[in-house]
Amino acid sequence: MLDNLQKFVHLKRETAEINLDPLQRGGILTPEAREALMEWGDGYSVCDFCAGILDRIKNPPIEDFVHGALPEFLGTDQVRITHGAREGMFAAIHALCEKGDWIVVDGNAHYTTILAAERAGCKIEYVPSSKEPDYAISAEGYADAIERAYEHKGNVSMAVLTYPDGNYGNLADAKAVAGVCHDYSVPVMLNGAYSVGRMPVAARALDADIIVGSGHKSMAASGPVGVIGAADEYANVIFRPSSLKKNKEVELLGCTVRGAPLLTLMASFPQVVERVKRWDDEVDKARWFSAGLEKLGMVQQGDRPHNHDLMFFLAENLYEISKTAKKGRFFLYRDLKERGICGIKPGLTRQFKLSTFGLSREDLGKALAAFEEIIESHKQGAGGKETS
Amino acid sequence: MLDNLQKFVHLKRETAEINLDPLQRGGILTPEAREALMEWGDGYSVCDFCAGILDRIKNPPIEDFVHGALPEFLGTDQVRITHGAREGMFAAIHALCEKGDWIVVDGNAHYTTILAAERAGCKIEYVPSSKEPDYAISAEGYADAIERAYEHKGNVSMAVLTYPDGNYGNLADAKAVAGVCHDYSVPVMLNGAYSVGRMPVAARALDADIIVGSGHKSMAASGPVGVIGAADEYANVIFRPSSLKKNKEVELLGCTVRGAPLLTLMASFPQVVERVKRWDDEVDKARWFSAGLEKLGMVQQGDRPHNHDLMFFLAENLYEISKTAKKGRFFLYRDLKERGICGIKPGLTRQFKLSTFGLSREDLGKALAAFEEIIESHKQGAGGKETS
Repeated sequence: MLDNLQKFVHLKRETAEINLDPLQRGGILTPEAREALMEWGDGYSVCDFCAGILDRIKNPPIEDFVHGALPEFLGTDQVRITHGAREGMFAAIHALCEKGDWIVVDGNAHYTTILAAERAGCKIEYVPSSKEPDYAISAEGYADAIERAYEHKGNVSMAVLTYPDGNYGNLADAKAVAGVCHDYSVPVMLNGAYSVGRMPVAARALDADIIVGSGHKSMAASGPVGVIGAADEYANVIFRPSSLKKNKEVELLGCTVRGAPLLTLMASFPQVVERVKRWDDEVDKARWFSAGLEKLGMVQQGDRPHNHDLMFFLAENLYEISKTAKKGRFFLYRDLKERGICGIKPGLTRQFKLSTFGLSREDLGKALAAFEEIIESHKQGAGGKETS
Repeated sequence: MLDNLQKFVHLKRETAEINLDPLQRGGILTPEAREALMEWGDGYSVCDFCAGILDRIKNPPIEDFVHGALPEFLGTDQVRITHGAREGMFAAIHALCEKGDWIVVDGNAHYTTILAAERAGCKIEYVPSSKEPDYAISAEGYADAIERAYEHKGNVSMAVLTYPDGNYGNLADAKAVAGVCHDYSVPVMLNGAYSVGRMPVAARALDADIIVGSGHKSMAASGPVGVIGAADEYANVIFRPSSLKKNKEVELLGCTVRGAPLLTLMASFPQVVERVKRWDDEVDKARWFSAGLEKLGMVQQGDRPHNHDLMFFLAENLYEISKTAKKGRFFLYRDLKERGICGIKPGLTRQFKLSTFGLSREDLGKALAAFEEIIESHKQGAGGKETS
């Protein structure tokens, strides 16, 4: 096993010119982040002048970032760096909930919310979404879910809203959700993996008590790295100091991201702050692209008009093509790749998600043209066979 | 707060030619790892062809690495990638121990072992080290600690040995420790943050049930990234699948390091495998360097002869100089830096640790010469004042 190790070296990434993967669009590094990777790549590079607390390091200016810029950016009292949104959610749940407690979670939640709750030994009561094509999450649904948990004699110790969710890109009315949950004295955590760093989102303005974000998903950082913000009332529990080791926060195991991913997060931050201001244009682009795909016969699900770059489409026409195309359901992946486009999962045709975030209208136009060409090319062939 | 953000960009690392920091010596990237950083820097770059399980990704060949190479390298049944040694320790403790259980820990343990236990709600019974200058951890000490925990009516569900510890670089008799703990049916976890990737260490050969390692500390990787290995009996619990989400492992929250740090770990791995084979030379260098410092009046603590590159020194002579030197206790840091040497914590003089790992005899010779020069220069000045 320990021979032929060269297969782990000099690996090249196969990627296309235009990448529509929602998971990847917000994590593309800025040139400044690439520079930071090279400068701070070595393990523990940020610890040269550490006095024992990662987020208090002054050189590089991590303290200013974590205690100055990030609380302002997230609209919250206190912030810490995490390994990612999921690790932030687990830290909050683990710190604030007891084993056996109930957590109320939107039905569109990312699987990691469920795993974070399961890992902490908590039970889950879902807030179901409305039916297709909207898949909407309502504030009233949270009241119903909390009531159902009470019927199990459960203690409801947290509510989570995925804002937006990672399937449909739906932005529920977070403030209304928080209002309902607060009526029951249940704190609200926003999973902002797809919002923080893409769009304006301030926890305080949405009455959210806790917010998590993802550096590699939406803040142009080389992950894994994320942020967790919380109002003082909860921050003081989540970030509680160890009773055994001075100056070390238990829930973070002392320090979290002590290396290059954090410096890439910092290096991209000025551009992230700027791009968030251009969110309206991102939404316009998304709607324009969605309209273009719908003209070609696909149907966008979720919020309409859509308010986020992440969109989910049904494509019965592509599914029909897949029944007879060479390579079957992999035809779409292959045909798009031939046209310099990637990011839709290999094998998907009947339904898929994509993102327009950070792509120019020119590139999005190329993507629309590619879809059109592909559909046309499969029409021309007899019995749906391809011509190329 | 969100103005003047340029302070987070174009940050340069101030480092010296010869770095003696034990935390950093093993995490210096290979050229191949630097190449991987550039190629795979974008967030979620490794997920292009993922079917839902990080460690089963075939392109790049993460599956071969995690399920083939690493179990062989660590001498264990199953391995997963973690965010670092501390996160691996927490995962194992959280999975295998109940809140209120006792964990037996060597008195030289890194603070993160304590935090991992505290975070999991476990109590700690220490195995005290012997007195100075040895600070040795004995197998019998584990029996005594387990017995003491029993006296508290405690359930002892794990023993941890820091192998070597991060203060003295002591390598206890891990096999003997495991033998004693197994007599009590207590599983043994090795914290190999300073061994895995530096020296040969195979969990099975040491009768260890679980082992954690650190990519950024000792495997030439850009962190945070680590490894956890376990015998099947324990791996099946630590890596248990979610009961709610198919194919996702609860304790890892699904996936851990989905990005560049993992690819740097892989890219450096062939050289790590090779350097481990040269461990005898590393030990020779450490002993030679230690002898050199002792000739200058310092006294090495811990195992003698020493068996690891991490060493702890008492330096009464440097402490005496600090009493009258310009900049006081910061003189050593400044004087070494002027001579191209860093890695001893600013402000330390009376006692400090350092590492010789991966440094040439030539560079180590320069470091010895620098210490000698510094001591001499402070002797020459009247009343211990410096001359330069």
